Amino acid sequence: MIKYPIILINFKAYRESSGKKAVELAKIAEKVWKETGVTIGVAPQLTDLGVVAREVEIPVFAQHADAVEPGSATGHVTLEAIKDAGAIGTMLNHSERRIRADQVDFLVKKARKLNLVTVVCSNTPEVTAAMASLSPDMVAIEPPELIGTGIPVSKAKPEIVLNSVKLVEKVNPEVKVLCGAGITTGDDVEAAINLGTVGVLLASGVVKAKDWYSAIMNLVKPLLK
Amino acid sequence: MIKYPIILINFKAYRESSGKKAVELAKIAEKVWKETGVTIGVAPQLTDLGVVAREVEIPVFAQHADAVEPGSATGHVTLEAIKDAGAIGTMLNHSERRIRADQVDFLVKKARKLNLVTVVCSNTPEVTAAMASLSPDMVAIEPPELIGTGIPVSKAKPEIVLNSVKLVEKVNPEVKVLCGAGITTGDDVEAAINLGTVGVLLASGVVKAKDWYSAIMNLVKPLLK
Amino acid sequence: MIKYPIILINFKAYRESSGKKAVELAKIAEKVWKETGVTIGVAPQLTDLGVVAREVEIPVFAQHADAVEPGSATGHVTLEAIKDAGAIGTMLNHSERRIRADQVDFLVKKARKLNLVTVVCSNTPEVTAAMASLSPDMVAIEPPELIGTGIPVSKAKPEIVLNSVKLVEKVNPEVKVLCGAGITTGDDVEAAINLGTVGVLLASGVVKAKDWYSAIMNLVKPLLK
Amino acid sequence: MIKYPIILINFKAYRESSGKKAVELAKIAEKVWKETGVTIGVAPQLTDLGVVAREVEIPVFAQHADAVEPGSATGHVTLEAIKDAGAIGTMLNHSERRIRADQVDFLVKKARKLNLVTVVCSNTPEVTAAMASLSPDMVAIEPPELIGTGIPVSKAKPEIVLNSVKLVEKVNPEVKVLCGAGITTGDDVEAAINLGTVGVLLASGVVKAKDWYSAIMNLVKPLLK
Repeated sequence: MIKYPIILINFKAYRESSGKKAVELAKIAEKVWKETGVTIGVAPQLTDLGVVAREVEIPVFAQHADAVEPGSATGHVTLEAIKDAGAIGTMLNHSERRIRADQVDFLVKKARKLNLVTVVCSNTPEVTAAMASLSPDMVAIEPPELIGTGIPVSKAKPEIVLNSVKLVEKVNPEVKVLCGAGITTGDDVEAAINLGTVGVLLASGVVKAKDWYSAIMNLVKPLLK
Repeated sequence: MIKYPIILINFKAYRESSGKKAVELAKIAEKVWKETGVTIGVAPQLTDLGVVAREVEIPVFAQHADAVEPGSATGHVTLEAIKDAGAIGTMLNHSERRIRADQVDFLVKKARKLNLVTVVCSNTPEVTAAMASLSPDMVAIEPPELIGTGIPVSKAKPEIVLNSVKLVEKVNPEVKVLCGAGITTGDDVEAAINLGTVGVLLASGVVKAKDWYSAIMNLVKPLLK
Repeated sequence: MIKYPIILINFKAYRESSGKKAVELAKIAEKVWKETGVTIGVAPQLTDLGVVAREVEIPVFAQHADAVEPGSATGHVTLEAIKDAGAIGTMLNHSERRIRADQVDFLVKKARKLNLVTVVCSNTPEVTAAMASLSPDMVAIEPPELIGTGIPVSKAKPEIVLNSVKLVEKVNPEVKVLCGAGITTGDDVEAAINLGTVGVLLASGVVKAKDWYSAIMNLVKPLLK
Repeated sequence: MIKYPIILINFKAYRESSGKKAVELAKIAEKVWKETGVTIGVAPQLTDLGVVAREVEIPVFAQHADAVEPGSATGHVTLEAIKDAGAIGTMLNHSERRIRADQVDFLVKKARKLNLVTVVCSNTPEVTAAMASLSPDMVAIEPPELIGTGIPVSKAKPEIVLNSVKLVEKVNPEVKVLCGAGITTGDDVEAAINLGTVGVLLASGVVKAKDWYSAIMNLVKPLLK
């Protein structure tokens, strides 16, 4: 469904990427994809999900889903609602929105039936292996202490990424591995790929950049060789 | 900001009111408002919030907000995002998505600064009084045991509504009271108004109806006299 | 049931007041009570509750209770278990363990039937009023930003305590008010009493003191006049 | 540390096994151990943990631990408090008290340093594998739909137990597997052992029995051959 490698941009709850700006940022990501062919996914805020999914052709992800069925579940985000909004899949278990393992299990199994793509975040190699046991499409290892620092995990803690890749290989080799935390430049992306990942998950490195187009293009460059 | 009385339709996480159907239902509610002048608010799923707010002129509410600031809060719904999406306000503390009193306090105070309207749900007269102490625009008393039953609180348990109205009068008379749970017909709405409320909060009574237009028009009728 | 004023010592999850040391600290509090007649309550960790309640005659409180009935509720703390362990009551909604308003409502109503005393914490005057609407025995206003600082709320932010006392007087004058955060000395206690409270809630001011007996005796002194 | 096989009795939040009765039940379990040499663990309610651990020599477990450090964590249960109370270890992630995978990871790693034994519950073979990736001492597979039914998982759904054993063998063969849900008799225990587990986790099968001694002795019998 997804053509790898992938750059996945998490809009978080930043006001810089909220409402109209969410659409603007998604369109710039789409532009880079059109110019380079590199897969760029976007994960806007939940309130913007439907609007963004209407406006772009690149893969749009929810940032979170709740482990509930459609029905009497006011204020919750079902996988069905994510699908109906036009998104291709969802992130799960981000360090800022952890859920329980049984909920990840429920959501991954259900997403598969709904043809939704799942990206499950983790914080240590052991938790990465645990999440890979649940067979999502991708796991994304992000040491929380590096998130938002600009210190790239792929260079500062390569052993965490390597160990994650190795454990996933053992537990379930069909699961793809992303890494995140501190990713800002194309060099960081290249380092991530060299460690055995299929791409990166990042947020402030793009959202907080003065020039979104240049920031994304810089990330994509090493993937063009 | 709001012209009372109000009929507030909660789309919950029903698939019948998700995605494109959310826009469809909101437009029918808008049609009834245009024809009758009675305020009808809609609370679509979070993933549909931006899309619905773009499409209609009636008041659009979020079903829930998280007590967090914009920023590194992946998967959370800030009041700012709700505003940026074009909504007029938010429901809080619905029985299916309770939050803590300190979070209601945080959100109500912040919503006031952002000019967002707050509707805080409660389950007993005492909790209604507690929520009114936090000075939201509206409280909505909904005995959970009647939600989704079709047995209207305004007729089956009028004393719960009356006690809520009386306690709110004492604690903070500026707070408006809605009631909900089991509301389906115009008679239920009339009974609610007669108990001292400014309107009703309902979900399945409209969403699960075969003919949305007739269902909403039926609710509005006693308010036209 | 309780003779006011009261000094309530929260053992938190400090290791200095865990296991055998919990019993030791409770016995010293009991000694000061025997010598002075001033009510001193202790709230040991949940794992020590039964042991401490066996060993002392002063009021023993749980630090938290869950809003569940006895039965299939592994890992939860019921009010019945608190009673069976020999405690006199429980703290609820501490800033480090907030629960929802409907849960406070459930627990306060049930505690009354079980003859258990409830102390509900709050963080702002508005939340204090909200909690008082639920009619616990005591509310304890504690601005979180002062907790553990040694800067006493009763001297640094007297207006928060005064406003809380005033709002509780309006909402439900039968509810007693405690204050907490930064309380260390008898002067802080005296200031609290002068603001209209019936006592204080404190933790590190006693638990982290080198000499527990002197620390507690110092707090009690102004109450002996 | 533990001699296998093991029968682990979860007292849940049943009032039948609360306070003084917790000690009584633990002493009967201890009696059966003395008479048969079969390891019987008990997991009393948190409020009874210290009292029970003082009174018996058999392994005492907490039902739950929170992923927090000792300190300002009112109402939470630290591993240190569990150790100070005299328990040998803790259950984690019971179906009635699920926690997140990163919290299980944190707690298992820390328990190892504190020499505490961990039993992590799960609901499906996939989640069992995920929990085994985190290297606790034991995992306990319990399909929630059978808990409390008296329909033993070891006979009604042997494939769930078998698949769990097989996946754990692949992911981390050092982790022992228990099974639970519906276990009542020695036959159920025997079936569990034959499926490759080292024992069972049960609650109502013992706690709700009229004669605790006979109920436990019946469970132990097949292990005496």
